[in-house]
Amino acid sequence: TIADAIMEALRPAPQPLRGLRALVTAGPTHEPIDPVRYIANRSSGRQGYAIADALARAGAEVTLVSGPTTLPPPAGIALRRVETAVQMLAACEAALPCDIAICTAAVADWRVAQAGTRKIKKTPGAPPPTLALVPNPDILAHLSRPGPLRPRLVIGFAAETDDVRDNATAKRQRKGCDWIIANDVRAETGIMGGDENEITLITATGSEHWPRMSKDAVAAGLVRRIAATFATTPDIAPDDIPPDGVPA
Amino acid sequence: TIADAIMEALRPAPQPLRGLRALVTAGPTHEPIDPVRYIANRSSGRQGYAIADALARAGAEVTLVSGPTTLPPPAGIALRRVETAVQMLAACEAALPCDIAICTAAVADWRVAQAGTRKIKKTPGAPPPTLALVPNPDILAHLSRPGPLRPRLVIGFAAETDDVRDNATAKRQRKGCDWIIANDVRAETGIMGGDENEITLITATGSEHWPRMSKDAVAAGLVRRIAATFATTPDIAPDDIPPDGVPA
Repeated sequence: TIADAIMEALRPAPQPLRGLRALVTAGPTHEPIDPVRYIANRSSGRQGYAIADALARAGAEVTLVSGPTTLPPPAGIALRRVETAVQMLAACEAALPCDIAICTAAVADWRVAQAGTRKIKKTPGAPPPTLALVPNPDILAHLSRPGPLRPRLVIGFAAETDDVRDNATAKRQRKGCDWIIANDVRAETGIMGGDENEITLITATGSEHWPRMSKDAVAAGLVRRIAATFATTPDIAPDDIPPDGVPA
Repeated sequence: TIADAIMEALRPAPQPLRGLRALVTAGPTHEPIDPVRYIANRSSGRQGYAIADALARAGAEVTLVSGPTTLPPPAGIALRRVETAVQMLAACEAALPCDIAICTAAVADWRVAQAGTRKIKKTPGAPPPTLALVPNPDILAHLSRPGPLRPRLVIGFAAETDDVRDNATAKRQRKGCDWIIANDVRAETGIMGGDENEITLITATGSEHWPRMSKDAVAAGLVRRIAATFATTPDIAPDDIPPDGVPA
């Protein structure tokens, strides 16, 4: 009946992740070279913001740790803005314990070894400077490390330009995370910075390719998968969360 | 009388730069490291966009060559979007001849010698890469070079963190431009990326310090100075422009 349809439309959205805490990282990091210059990357943060929004709509308590982006923050989440990988790691650690961690941020692999406190001057006739780099902390590997604060489900993203599935599968094992979402960020795909994504979800038991769709649709699909996993895997069921967020 | 006041308010804004062509560069440049990473700087483009807007309101025909920014383009100007310094130079050359060139862009001094066509992978255990840099074209010096296409008034910006006035004065002579606008971009000033600016205008005959004000007010003041210069200097008066834009 029409009345049923109205009641159905007015029913609150299901909140399968109610009672769960989620951490999402998003955006690029900016690694300073000197006070005005920095190393950046083309991540817009859109996929991570979409996931944070979808998690919050599904009832999770979400902390979004975001590098520099121009996106409006989703409603009902706690936003922590950072600039560098080192700052992002600290903000992630401050957000623990949590049940779900989704690392979408394109964290710079390296930072400049000696960032100048003064603007590096161009000296006429002198050769250009050389930028020596040092490794940044690996936030995904850090969150995936076994221990009492390890989130029960850790999901990483792999931005690849070549051998997308193979590189991402290797990354999943190297990092120790549970799932990896691989995407092809070659410039011609328009995915990095764009509105759409085309992903391969890689778990311990296999991989599945999702057709190209909006980043919002990827986020909604991912949240459905997360909810199904928490509903069907007894030791990570939502009803089973002790006060410290760590499963028995 | 009230009628006079109304007539005054309804009078069209004066257009002292009517008939003049202006080129403005704005924003940062992004210099690719590989398909996803790049070197950037903290320029927001606000000062350049404000100047392009003020020039257009004063009647000039404005081309704005802009690096990546998130700003809405001013009304009534021709916008040319670029990413790298090499692209910015090409877009500037395409905008010649012009009467006034104002280089506000924070053009990267260097670019990566060999930008990768594939994402540079982090190899576990291997040392981080080193970025060898090569000099970018010097757009301000290029536009200032004597010749038939030299704009009649070339204005550069100097973003400095130390010895602001001395560095900017030396830059004016080295580049061959007519005026330099020096500003102090130390992080604690909040000028780079902010809404306000505090400048020192350096000409062939001296320097003057302007108090801190909005970037729109700096733009309006600068346009007044430009209009006064064109009005009082016979050989660059607006009435004196031959069809090729080059004064006799």
